[in-house]
Amino acid sequence: MLTDIEIAQQCSMLPITKIAEEIGLTAEEIELYGKYKAKLTEDVWERLKDKKDGKLVLVTAINPTPAGEGKTTTTVGLGQAMKKIGKKAIIALREPSLGPVMGVKGGAAGGGYAQVVPMEDINLHFTGDMHAITTANNLLSAAIDNHIHQGNSLGIDLRQIVWKRALDMNDRALREVVVGLGGKVNGFPREDGFVITVASEIMAILCLSSDLMDLKERLGRIIIGYNYSGQPVTAKDLNVDGAMTLLLKDAIKPNLVQTLENTPCLMHGGPFANIAHGCNSIMATKLALKLGDYVITEAGFGADLGAEKFLDIKCRYAGLKPDAIVLVATIRALKYNGGLKKDQLKEEDLEALEKGFVNVEKHVENLRKFNVPVMVTINHFDTDSDKEVEYVRNQCLKLNVEVAFSQVFSKGGEGGRELAEKLVKLIDSTTSDFKPIYDEKLPIKEKIDVITREIYGGKGVVYTQAAEKSIKKIEEMGLDRLPICMAKTQYSLSDNPALLGRPQGFDITVREVRISAGAGFIVAITGEIMTMPGLPKVPAAERIDIDDSGKIVGLF
Amino acid sequence: MLTDIEIAQQCSMLPITKIAEEIGLTAEEIELYGKYKAKLTEDVWERLKDKKDGKLVLVTAINPTPAGEGKTTTTVGLGQAMKKIGKKAIIALREPSLGPVMGVKGGAAGGGYAQVVPMEDINLHFTGDMHAITTANNLLSAAIDNHIHQGNSLGIDLRQIVWKRALDMNDRALREVVVGLGGKVNGFPREDGFVITVASEIMAILCLSSDLMDLKERLGRIIIGYNYSGQPVTAKDLNVDGAMTLLLKDAIKPNLVQTLENTPCLMHGGPFANIAHGCNSIMATKLALKLGDYVITEAGFGADLGAEKFLDIKCRYAGLKPDAIVLVATIRALKYNGGLKKDQLKEEDLEALEKGFVNVEKHVENLRKFNVPVMVTINHFDTDSDKEVEYVRNQCLKLNVEVAFSQVFSKGGEGGRELAEKLVKLIDSTTSDFKPIYDEKLPIKEKIDVITREIYGGKGVVYTQAAEKSIKKIEEMGLDRLPICMAKTQYSLSDNPALLGRPQGFDITVREVRISAGAGFIVAITGEIMTMPGLPKVPAAERIDIDDSGKIVGLF
Repeated sequence: MLTDIEIAQQCSMLPITKIAEEIGLTAEEIELYGKYKAKLTEDVWERLKDKKDGKLVLVTAINPTPAGEGKTTTTVGLGQAMKKIGKKAIIALREPSLGPVMGVKGGAAGGGYAQVVPMEDINLHFTGDMHAITTANNLLSAAIDNHIHQGNSLGIDLRQIVWKRALDMNDRALREVVVGLGGKVNGFPREDGFVITVASEIMAILCLSSDLMDLKERLGRIIIGYNYSGQPVTAKDLNVDGAMTLLLKDAIKPNLVQTLENTPCLMHGGPFANIAHGCNSIMATKLALKLGDYVITEAGFGADLGAEKFLDIKCRYAGLKPDAIVLVATIRALKYNGGLKKDQLKEEDLEALEKGFVNVEKHVENLRKFNVPVMVTINHFDTDSDKEVEYVRNQCLKLNVEVAFSQVFSKGGEGGRELAEKLVKLIDSTTSDFKPIYDEKLPIKEKIDVITREIYGGKGVVYTQAAEKSIKKIEEMGLDRLPICMAKTQYSLSDNPALLGRPQGFDITVREVRISAGAGFIVAITGEIMTMPGLPKVPAAERIDIDDSGKIVGLF
Repeated sequence: MLTDIEIAQQCSMLPITKIAEEIGLTAEEIELYGKYKAKLTEDVWERLKDKKDGKLVLVTAINPTPAGEGKTTTTVGLGQAMKKIGKKAIIALREPSLGPVMGVKGGAAGGGYAQVVPMEDINLHFTGDMHAITTANNLLSAAIDNHIHQGNSLGIDLRQIVWKRALDMNDRALREVVVGLGGKVNGFPREDGFVITVASEIMAILCLSSDLMDLKERLGRIIIGYNYSGQPVTAKDLNVDGAMTLLLKDAIKPNLVQTLENTPCLMHGGPFANIAHGCNSIMATKLALKLGDYVITEAGFGADLGAEKFLDIKCRYAGLKPDAIVLVATIRALKYNGGLKKDQLKEEDLEALEKGFVNVEKHVENLRKFNVPVMVTINHFDTDSDKEVEYVRNQCLKLNVEVAFSQVFSKGGEGGRELAEKLVKLIDSTTSDFKPIYDEKLPIKEKIDVITREIYGGKGVVYTQAAEKSIKKIEEMGLDRLPICMAKTQYSLSDNPALLGRPQGFDITVREVRISAGAGFIVAITGEIMTMPGLPKVPAAERIDIDDSGKIVGLF
């Protein structure tokens, strides 16, 4: 089979003006970025805000494994398949981060015959949203150090600055740095660090804002650190919330692109799925609901993290009511969950499959707790045996959950017909009565407890002293009535990445609690959370190239 | 009078498609970035490369003073005035850097009624060129630290890494930093620093490249530091020249915008005028020459730095032959050069004017040494007295140099009629026989000597021991046959910013010599050169804002 970029380069994209026209946008309502990318102006929302919403479908997955599940690929393929069965669907995705493109991943806009294009641009600078966020982030950092250098009238405590600089690059050398060296003219030396741009709170803010003025207010609320009396200091205190907002005036506008089969895709925002909520922007999702009869979206990592945060944070803030959830799994990944090694997955192993299938079972149970109709889809591989397929079908029948097999990676939208048809049937035949799993007005520990017991299937929560102290501080600041953003390993339902399948009887340990006052959530951190990746021994950047005919190679 | 942004907001821009059409570009030859910005595709050059060139005009200035000379404003106003007198002119300018916009300047795309628009976009992210350069710069940095972390097979000496990270931000705290702290997983700690993006060698490379493949070769030649045997290590050795090129695939395409009066402007590239050559890109200038009958361009700082480097570096590399040079001065600035303080400039003072006029005299003499026709233009202020104006006219007559008064700041193109008419007459009546002032094959010291004696009017050059050592090293590497890029204070013809007017009998001191092997020049540094500005006590960012109607304030 061809590589992703070869497939992408062979496809015939329509001019983005044509895609826009097909979803009823006028030429005045889009701003072109080259021939195949556009931003939607604020006028679109004004015109359509009272229109009836389409149906909202979340694509999520079992706990990810090295075998790969294909969540984004399924999301894109499902969008393409909806067109095949005559439905008007729009895909709403996150934007990829450039850093990992240069590291291991190569690219991140679906795969095979289910991709969003132009993939080269999407995986590089796209329409500049990431760079705008980087700039706003670093303007705030520069303002902090400048304020201190110029007299520090706010009394910012150099030892308690929590705001970090950002760069959209995988660069381990920037994780921990000392800035302000070189004497008086360069300011006060202090410890600092860089996060990758998608881990910046500004990315989360952009994705949770309802409009530009809401964005500005949220930016103003960012807590950059504490003064010598222990009181929070905000971006607004530094008077740069207006300039930061201006830097984001275009980044806040959703981007329109298309799939290989010309299905429209709103691609906007891409917050980390650990220290942030991991979903595309509220503005893009809400716009998509006005423009399409079905909106297919996804959330980062497995359902215990991605779907939970999509439902408890994004849908809560946006007032969204999802109509169905599709849980993606592969037979390979289930066997891995059942204890097989990565190189054993090609062989039929019903025992391992049975042992691993409990992961699907638990996620289906979980998602039903939100009162949203759920179905399962298996991203089908040639190595899946007939018996394995039959086993999965039977088990789903027992769980009374619909299951569809799809082959969108190798066949595009055609390979997703069964999935699309069953999804439409599910939506037509059931009603969603969505509600979040906890009341955000509960005390912090109670909220974390609900998530741990109800979603992870754990026994209870252990807090480190540091976490206890932070919780107390957040309560004192009156910021405890916010949703929880769990930062946990994606590989297990527990906080131990080695516990696959459906672990039980475990406690999770909350080591650290942070407040993202601008984004509007409380981050509970279990385990090590990496906010600045590194490059591998041979980075993708070494094989990425462009030749004299302009041909791009090395983006996978 | 209205502020710059108020004037810019009131003007009626034409769709950029219309501007493109007027200069003969087809819809296929431009890539839109919103409605008022576009990039020119590589096809334009292919179609037009054999067409006859228009006339090339360089706008330069006397040594800058705090009084302001209005070089960019005059350049833009002249472009507008050419249209008024029925000539087809195109302006070719540098792109502003975002960092200073947030610092002191507010904005940098001309002023008053001689501006390039959309000024908000141009002064913020524009079409993303700066961000692409930042990213390519920092990919190289990440590759360096990753290479060392992963085993350092090239033997890079941590103490001899000359490549710095970059950010488009005024941020003094990043001038000197230590990276790689935090233990083994974060790599090896080392001293590093950030330069502002426009000071990155990549910016100079982009501006001196003839096409994408030339860019790639130059990027590959960048010397990032030295190995333990003292041999240079390049970007190509690290295998990231291809990925860096790919990151710049759109940044290399010139940007098309317009002035307040709809004159087309190619705005592309903006290298620092001290450690780099301070001119817009060769590609944009060469394209402009195919698209217009007259191309009006400018170079950074006064004529001793900007024009000298434009002529000796850019024109030499591009094979360009300028047809005329316009030297901008103001009567205020000349009086400042004659010894007045900033608050005394409004009053008539013929003595000070006479004392300061020698600066014009010297620059006219200098520019004539390049065998290019020269004229003077005075950016006219209401406070200029009739006697002062008469004095300047008489002095220019004595120098046998044409002079025109202009008022483009307050009157737009109308205010530049005299200038435009005299310029056309100069070009029609004289011939340029341009040649650079030195042979680049001369030894390094001889080249610096020529510039010092012929252009600065100095006696000789003193070298520090460090400079001597670097020169020897560059000679050993066989890289000495490159043009010289002088990094000197812009405020004086000498290397002492306090020596105004026409200093004589001075030596200059070269403290440091660096090689920019990718850009293709040798940087001779005299005095302190700042490559990362800081923010002032009250940064512009504090007054920059956007209100709920989307109105932008605080960009001046």
